[in-house]
Amino acid sequence: MEITPGPLLSQINSPDDLKKLSRDELFQVCEELRHYIIDVVSVYGGHFAASLGVVELSVALHYIYNTPYDQLVWDVGHQAYGHKILTGRRDIFATNRKYKGISGFPKRSESVYDTFGVGHSSTSISAALGMAIAAKYKNEKDRKSVAIIGDGAMTAGLAFEGLNHAGVADADLLVILNDNCMSIDPNVGALKEYLTDITTSPAYNKMRDDVWKLLGKLPVGKKFTRDMAAKLETGFKGLVSKSSNLFESLNFRYFGPIDGHNITKLVDTLEDLRKIPGPKLLHIITVKGKGYALAEKDQTKWHAPGLFDKVTGEIYKKKFDLPQPPKYQDVFGHSIIELAKENDKIMGITPAMPSGSSLKFMMEAMPDRAFDVGITEQHAVTVSAGLATQGLRVFCNIYSSFMQRAYDQVIHDVAIQKLPVIFCLDRAGLVGEDGPTHHGAYDIPYMRCIPNMVVSSPMNESELRNLMFTAQLEKNTSPFVIRYPRGEGVMPEWKTPFKEIEIGTGRKLKDGSEIAILTFGHPGNFATTAIRELRTEGIDPAHYDMRFVKPIDEKILHEVFSKFEKIITVEDGTIVGGFGSAVLEFMNANHYNATIKMLGIPDRIVEHGTLKELHHECHYDATAIKDAVHEMLHQPVIEKTVI
Amino acid sequence: MEITPGPLLSQINSPDDLKKLSRDELFQVCEELRHYIIDVVSVYGGHFAASLGVVELSVALHYIYNTPYDQLVWDVGHQAYGHKILTGRRDIFATNRKYKGISGFPKRSESVYDTFGVGHSSTSISAALGMAIAAKYKNEKDRKSVAIIGDGAMTAGLAFEGLNHAGVADADLLVILNDNCMSIDPNVGALKEYLTDITTSPAYNKMRDDVWKLLGKLPVGKKFTRDMAAKLETGFKGLVSKSSNLFESLNFRYFGPIDGHNITKLVDTLEDLRKIPGPKLLHIITVKGKGYALAEKDQTKWHAPGLFDKVTGEIYKKKFDLPQPPKYQDVFGHSIIELAKENDKIMGITPAMPSGSSLKFMMEAMPDRAFDVGITEQHAVTVSAGLATQGLRVFCNIYSSFMQRAYDQVIHDVAIQKLPVIFCLDRAGLVGEDGPTHHGAYDIPYMRCIPNMVVSSPMNESELRNLMFTAQLEKNTSPFVIRYPRGEGVMPEWKTPFKEIEIGTGRKLKDGSEIAILTFGHPGNFATTAIRELRTEGIDPAHYDMRFVKPIDEKILHEVFSKFEKIITVEDGTIVGGFGSAVLEFMNANHYNATIKMLGIPDRIVEHGTLKELHHECHYDATAIKDAVHEMLHQPVIEKTVI
Repeated sequence: MEITPGPLLSQINSPDDLKKLSRDELFQVCEELRHYIIDVVSVYGGHFAASLGVVELSVALHYIYNTPYDQLVWDVGHQAYGHKILTGRRDIFATNRKYKGISGFPKRSESVYDTFGVGHSSTSISAALGMAIAAKYKNEKDRKSVAIIGDGAMTAGLAFEGLNHAGVADADLLVILNDNCMSIDPNVGALKEYLTDITTSPAYNKMRDDVWKLLGKLPVGKKFTRDMAAKLETGFKGLVSKSSNLFESLNFRYFGPIDGHNITKLVDTLEDLRKIPGPKLLHIITVKGKGYALAEKDQTKWHAPGLFDKVTGEIYKKKFDLPQPPKYQDVFGHSIIELAKENDKIMGITPAMPSGSSLKFMMEAMPDRAFDVGITEQHAVTVSAGLATQGLRVFCNIYSSFMQRAYDQVIHDVAIQKLPVIFCLDRAGLVGEDGPTHHGAYDIPYMRCIPNMVVSSPMNESELRNLMFTAQLEKNTSPFVIRYPRGEGVMPEWKTPFKEIEIGTGRKLKDGSEIAILTFGHPGNFATTAIRELRTEGIDPAHYDMRFVKPIDEKILHEVFSKFEKIITVEDGTIVGGFGSAVLEFMNANHYNATIKMLGIPDRIVEHGTLKELHHECHYDATAIKDAVHEMLHQPVIEKTVI
Repeated sequence: MEITPGPLLSQINSPDDLKKLSRDELFQVCEELRHYIIDVVSVYGGHFAASLGVVELSVALHYIYNTPYDQLVWDVGHQAYGHKILTGRRDIFATNRKYKGISGFPKRSESVYDTFGVGHSSTSISAALGMAIAAKYKNEKDRKSVAIIGDGAMTAGLAFEGLNHAGVADADLLVILNDNCMSIDPNVGALKEYLTDITTSPAYNKMRDDVWKLLGKLPVGKKFTRDMAAKLETGFKGLVSKSSNLFESLNFRYFGPIDGHNITKLVDTLEDLRKIPGPKLLHIITVKGKGYALAEKDQTKWHAPGLFDKVTGEIYKKKFDLPQPPKYQDVFGHSIIELAKENDKIMGITPAMPSGSSLKFMMEAMPDRAFDVGITEQHAVTVSAGLATQGLRVFCNIYSSFMQRAYDQVIHDVAIQKLPVIFCLDRAGLVGEDGPTHHGAYDIPYMRCIPNMVVSSPMNESELRNLMFTAQLEKNTSPFVIRYPRGEGVMPEWKTPFKEIEIGTGRKLKDGSEIAILTFGHPGNFATTAIRELRTEGIDPAHYDMRFVKPIDEKILHEVFSKFEKIITVEDGTIVGGFGSAVLEFMNANHYNATIKMLGIPDRIVEHGTLKELHHECHYDATAIKDAVHEMLHQPVIEKTVI
């Protein structure tokens, strides 16, 4: 389908083209940009509401700032579609998030305008500050750095750390706080209440406007110092209730809040701010999904809606004749409630992913026992540890790649103290279209090297339920990782009765000859498919679902190494130090000898694409397993002799 | 040497005993406690200044709060010596930080009064909040949770995340901000400036006192809501310049600042606060090292001074006849200056460890190129990434166990973008007396599983210099880890000329027969010692210093696996997924076969002790290597056949 940009937008091949337009034309540019995003995303998919909220900001920034010399860092880059379209990627924008297409996030290797890769939130202040410090060091006085960050991302500790340093670094940094009270789910925490408070206080806004007008009349430039501005404000401030300003405590000059959809005001404001040195924060109020009525109303649903009819707003769902397997996420979300009904010690914690993780069901059903703690992975883990010291059984649900943020807390607060916190690592393994920043590729090595840790992965929905059941039993005294992938499992009839699993035991799925396939987690299903096809050729490998990488099932491994000299391991994680390496360690410690072929995520950055495309590219789908079996069978047993 | 506690302290075997004393006697208890800490630490060693600063607070808390039912969480637990002495550990306090003795930090397995293990900073708010939420859920209305946190620890993102959640969690939490403007090194950042500002504003203090007096006259309890208190303050607040209060923005009731060495005021204040529900923060001002004049004057030096004469203040230094090898830290600190003089792209970053890492030398010599960014490991890495995007070469120096805090930033902001940031992982491997929270045990597996990463470790000072030199060369385009241990190297004449090392190459230190020893980093010296002794017995192993675990030297490994069937790997890190496993992965991928004995940190929590004691316990010192060689030589080659 041909999607045509509007007449102005179609002439904008770089910010230089944008700058040629008059201010009066910017309103139309915004309209055209908004429609282009709606047109493309409705047909080709992608994140939606976030970019609609910053259409005006994207236009204003590239109109005023001298990009790419001036450097923009877009926090959680899925808001950067407008930025991408304005910076030379309009005509390839339909390839967004497609295999071999452009990335859904800013990416340094894709464009000079993408100054910093941003997939995880709250990195922008630190990154832009680094750029600002470098500009200062290099004496590039006219070079500006801007971080654009949402109110949700602002709750993360990293953002606070960045502000705290910026406040004393004497570098030229503008932080734009894009306040829409939403990240994916509604933003939570005291900061949010604070922002709402200052946003809605009429006294405060009036005061701000007065100060603003005053500033507008002042000569701006070298003579305009922060001290002067501070003096101007001192008198006003005291009159306003709750005027206390978080950002000013941290040495930032605070401006706003202003309407982030008023392109004229934005351009005027940015033009002024560009001339003011030092750390400063502009607070803009926007609506996520702005300009598409349904998205404005239900922002969580329209965060990344999939394909839809832009006129009717109908979101296309695949139609199926047969019942389909549920998402692992939903199995978690429903099962935790079942378990919590029986065990009043169970609590649920998620850092800002109630919808994504499906903990929202429990938050609705048991609001005193399930919490969204905001984009605060570190805190989520340590507060879980605190709860665990009181005998509670916490399911702390964090995406695998986000858990990287809380690694120290897992070691220091949970594992060293051997507190039985249950970590549900959602989106473990390759995640598809979100790409390298979101692939949960490293958790097997980074978790299994920690003492006291149990590390497990279910092959299907029923196994997930049983692992959850096992982890919450009083007799489990260890921290317990359950990693599972994004998306659907394999069991339409998933609601099986809970059954305890002996910790550290796998399952023999089938006996076989010549070759054994050991799998960890969901890729076990790829092996099942491969074996079904291999059997038609008369090849009959054994298959073991190991279920735990730590403690690993030594009984099974003794059996495997006693019977087989050819072994394939399959995992949905990096093959460096992962499940396959654990099998090697066992082999070496027990003086066995076998040829082991390790399938999993290769030791390189894997880009985005559909799961199917990526599993294929990374050679651990059913076809790859079949190929590996063929290859090993046709390969003579290598004489492992030593000179 | 017999150290006798004072007459009151000698009767205090638990907080119950303390509570039997009159308020008038508390001053004397504080004096006795202070002297007891000075007496014991001067003779037996340990952290010093931090605990002296909270003597009064420790006494007041245990006097007022119903411990251990009420729960105290001491942030960065080396301030908790007073707490330990008051809670039944007076007579074993001399075993503090000794092998098999009590821990230098609070530790759950050691005492019911130690509610949470705290070695890394900034965890206390989250942990105590977890306890408070649990108390609320269990309807334990009279049960209190208190976090005691320093102003330095408050700069970490985790503390902010905890505050942000606590502000809306409606749980009963008291945060005591112990403000002494010091962590180990002077505290930095905008927050520090802010705290200094509110601390020293007379108008603010007067106002606070007025409000406080007013509150003192009010009936406290159920009727005393936060709303009432807020109303009371509203009128006053506006009059004070810079009154903006960071903590009140986050929904905390703020009290203080008060003098943290005034035991009477502390007791009165805590008694009142214990009755006020909800999240509240008490800001106390203390002096680190209080009561020991020299420590008050030079707090960094007296953070953990080693043994000293308490009367003269002389800190005992070991005397040596011959020149001694320097600390790896100092080699780093001096070498980075040498390199920076030649390469103006070099910058240095440390999160709050300028003295410990010895970056302080560069901070003094080149203040615009070396920065202490506060206790902000995450930010330290991301700001380094930001600097690296501008072509700068950043040496980001973080202790191995603290780097766990910045794991996501290493992956997401540095490695995925392949930015050539240089990570100097100080205190890698076992660290000795600081124990399990500080052992740098996991960095080999958690770093080598990341694509694009170079992971190296020097065997001596000269190698450290050469690795630093190599990492900063323009032709190195990868993120580059250099891990080195705490303490002295082996080369008194350490200042060797810089020499480039080809990335991914090791060194053959000696040829040999029958057995090859592959070492990674400093433990190579243990192997050298072992080999020297073995040769007197006519045993002659080969020795390779592998230097890089990623990329690993395949040329050397081909040589080793071609020549030897018995191999020992030695590393100062966990053997799960570490250097030894990398060797196994190579062996498997290349179809070699050998018996490999992997020496390193075992897969369990290793407690504290001297490095010598711990290396021995963990079986990778020279003796253990010798034993391993003997064992392997006497062991028949196991027939690695397959049924």
